[in-house]
Formats: sequence, structure tokens, C-alpha cells
Amino acid sequence: MDSPVSQIKFASADVSKDELDSSALFRPRFNGDGLITAIAVDAEDNTILMLAYMNAEALQLSLQTGIAHYWSRSRNALWKKGETSGNVQIISEIRTDCDQDAVILRVRTQDTGANCHTGRKSCFYRSLEIGDDGQVQLAFDQEDQPLFDPSKVYK
Amino acid sequence: MDSPVSQIKFASADVSKDELDSSALFRPRFNGDGLITAIAVDAEDNTILMLAYMNAEALQLSLQTGIAHYWSRSRNALWKKGETSGNVQIISEIRTDCDQDAVILRVRTQDTGANCHTGRKSCFYRSLEIGDDGQVQLAFDQEDQPLFDPSKVYK
Repeated sequence: MDSPVSQIKFASADVSKDELDSSALFRPRFNGDGLITAIAVDAEDNTILMLAYMNAEALQLSLQTGIAHYWSRSRNALWKKGETSGNVQIISEIRTDCDQDAVILRVRTQDTGANCHTGRKSCFYRSLEIGDDGQVQLAFDQEDQPLFDPSKVYK
Repeated sequence: MDSPVSQIKFASADVSKDELDSSALFRPRFNGDGLITAIAVDAEDNTILMLAYMNAEALQLSLQTGIAHYWSRSRNALWKKGETSGNVQIISEIRTDCDQDAVILRVRTQDTGANCHTGRKSCFYRSLEIGDDGQVQLAFDQEDQPLFDPSKVYK
């Protein structure tokens, strides 16, 4: 997904809903904080890996380099995923939805293949279960064990 | 996923990041608008169908009834998916992510199996392509054709 140009251009999102869902032009509809939602998916087995956000720069860099870049809302900074852990995400495809406020990234994760800061492959490692008292509990997915030790990687 | 109780209870999200990612209690972390992000996925073939939002009531109703309910930001109202089109989503599993601000719903969609308001199975029916001029264009997925005519369903 290498870009032949140094400058990636997006069309304006200031169009009707009908134009957004029928358009053959990418019109990313950033929210009030300048962000679009991004879902990263394993390109090989379709596991949903994580949900994150991108600003225009992160989206342009992801398209230009073929490597996933996000916007970290907690650090308020551009975030090249895997820069610390080595678990860089190589993008094979980006898709957008009908109203163009979200993207899916199909990725191949390098190194250990972990995508979650807990060291697991996926951030979605727990499923909901309703207890007898109505309290909703979480069951851990035993197949999704940490692939690295976060305390050693993030110092 | 029938609930044995009439009242679904969530634990408080006012805990540390470490507690959120290691907790065996569901602590949905609603944003400033009282919403959590929800990704609906086809339980059979793992296709990502749509991205939407839930408030606490939509999440409780989804858990109690086993049928996907969302919060419509455009209509500012509770939204039982498929109420008009018949394409109700039956939930087989709900998962949450490390910081508990997003959920995945694994669903089986009834009737035509469409989930997008355009009549398609998935809202993510277009992929991004970079043109020679740097303009990002969208290629339509020819396999994801409309399963119903929106002009006849939504009057």
C-alpha cells in the first residue's frame, strides 16, 4: 500500500448523507475532536484486535507508509503502533463505512503478534456473563494469553 | 443470552486503568455523552457489520433480551436495530476491551441479513485506494450488493 505521492488528499466531508454513502471519494468525517474511529483486524484470521482513533495526520501516515499510526487520546500525541513493543501493524487494506466516520484496518502484526498493551493478541480478551444477582461479570479468554511481559516492555 | 433478572447491574468504571484491564467485573466506561462504542460482527463468518454506540439502557436491553439495541446519535433515541427493516440482530456473545470503553457483539442477523441502511450486509462496503494525484478514492466491494431496497423499507 505504498503511496506514489508525498501528500495524501481527502475530499471534503461537508456533503449530504446520501453523498457520503454513495461516494467513490474518501471523505473522512472527523468528529469534533478531529478524530475518526479505527478498528484493527487480523488480516489472516479476522480477529478484531483493537479499537483506536486517528486524526488526519495519522490517517495520512498510515496510507503513505502502510504502517498503522493512530492518535493517542491519553497521551494526546501521534502514536506509531508498536514503536516501543516492536509489534508494528503492517496494513493490507483499509475500508470505510457508509457515513465515513470509521475505518477498518486489515493488518499483519510483527514480532510477537501482540496488539494489546497487556501483551495479548487482542484487546477483546473478555466476554460478558450475567450473574444471578444481575451483576455483569467478565470471563477471560484462556486462548488469548499474554505474548510479552508489559512490565519489561513498557518501562 | 437470556437474563434471569429484570435488572442488569454494572460495576463502577471509576477505578484505575490497571483495575479496568485486569477486572473480572464489567465496568463499562461511558464517554462524556454517556456512550460506549459497539462493533457488530457476523457470528458465523466474522465479517464486521457496523459500528454504533450504546448508552447504559441500550447495553442493559441488549443483555436482557439478547437482541441488539443501540443509541442513535442522529435521532437522539434508543434504537432497536431492525425494528423497521426486520433485520434484527440476535446476539450470541458480547466482549469488551482492555479499558472497557468498547464492546463487540457477535450477532446473527435475521430476515435478509442486511445490517447497513443502504441495504448491504456490511456498512464497510468500500476500500481505500490512493490515486496518482494523491486523492484517496473508494472502491465498492462488488460482493456486498444491497439485499433490500432502502427506498421501499424506510418510507
